[in-house]
Order: sequence, then C-alpha cells, then structure tokens
Amino acid sequence: MTQDEVLAVFGSNVQKERQYLQLSQETLAEMAGLDRTYISSMERGKRNVSLVNIVKISNALSISPSKLFEGIREIDG
Amino acid sequence: MTQDEVLAVFGSNVQKERQYLQLSQETLAEMAGLDRTYISSMERGKRNVSLVNIVKISNALSISPSKLFEGIREIDG
Repeated sequence: MTQDEVLAVFGSNVQKERQYLQLSQETLAEMAGLDRTYISSMERGKRNVSLVNIVKISNALSISPSKLFEGIREIDG
Repeated sequence: MTQDEVLAVFGSNVQKERQYLQLSQETLAEMAGLDRTYISSMERGKRNVSLVNIVKISNALSISPSKLFEGIREIDG
C-alpha cells in the first residue's frame, strides 16, 4: 500500500461514517471544529491528517479512531 | 482531555511499545524510516503526528494503529 492509498482509504472511511450518520460535510466540519474544505479534501485522500484532527473527527462521528484505520495496511517503499 | 494530553498519551503509548520490544529510539526510527529526533519528540508528546507517520510507526512496532490510541479520550474545548 502506498502513502497515497493510506490517505485515500482513511478519507473513504471518514466519508462512509459521515454518510451513515447522514451528516453533510458542513455539519461534520462544525461538529469537529474544522473547515468544510478540509473535510472535503480529506475525504478525497488529499490530506495527511494530524493526530489531533483524527481524534476530533472520530469524536464528532462518535466512533473510535481505530474505525477510521480499517483497511489500512502496511506502507511499502 | 486537552490536545496536549492527546499528544502526550500517544507518545507514551509509542514509548511503551518500543520499550516492550526492547528497541532503541534509533532502531525504531530506522525501521519506520523516520528521524531519531522525531521519535524522541513524539514520545515526549511534542509532535502532532501525521496519519502516514502513525501508520509507519505502528508497522514498525508490528501493532495495529488503534493500540497507539489507547487511553485517548475526547478533546474538550
């Protein structure tokens, strides 16, 4: 798995959980104290999200951070 | 829990797992492809570690990333 793939899987996990809760990107952004454009680019795998923001997002989604790491495997190369 | 406390708990978890494996900071750094000073400051809770580096470190420690989030609770304020 490449670094880009790690970011893409993470972003896709955020999107799935957000859609499961029927939240807009804007609502999730407000709940997490982040910018809507940040949520948008993160879901598209364009952000190397920081530890603090991972915790903020999982808090807002009421899930464990580990849920957002599902499907992420070893980085090669 | 404050943002600083999140970083401190994460760093402490890395340190515990590294010491459990009897690895030096230098060895872990080499295995993870990171700098030794980066590992050192992370363990002291001074780094808002990125997603890619969280995956690199958990890979090097042969644990799930979720293990490094143990004891991390909601960020308030």
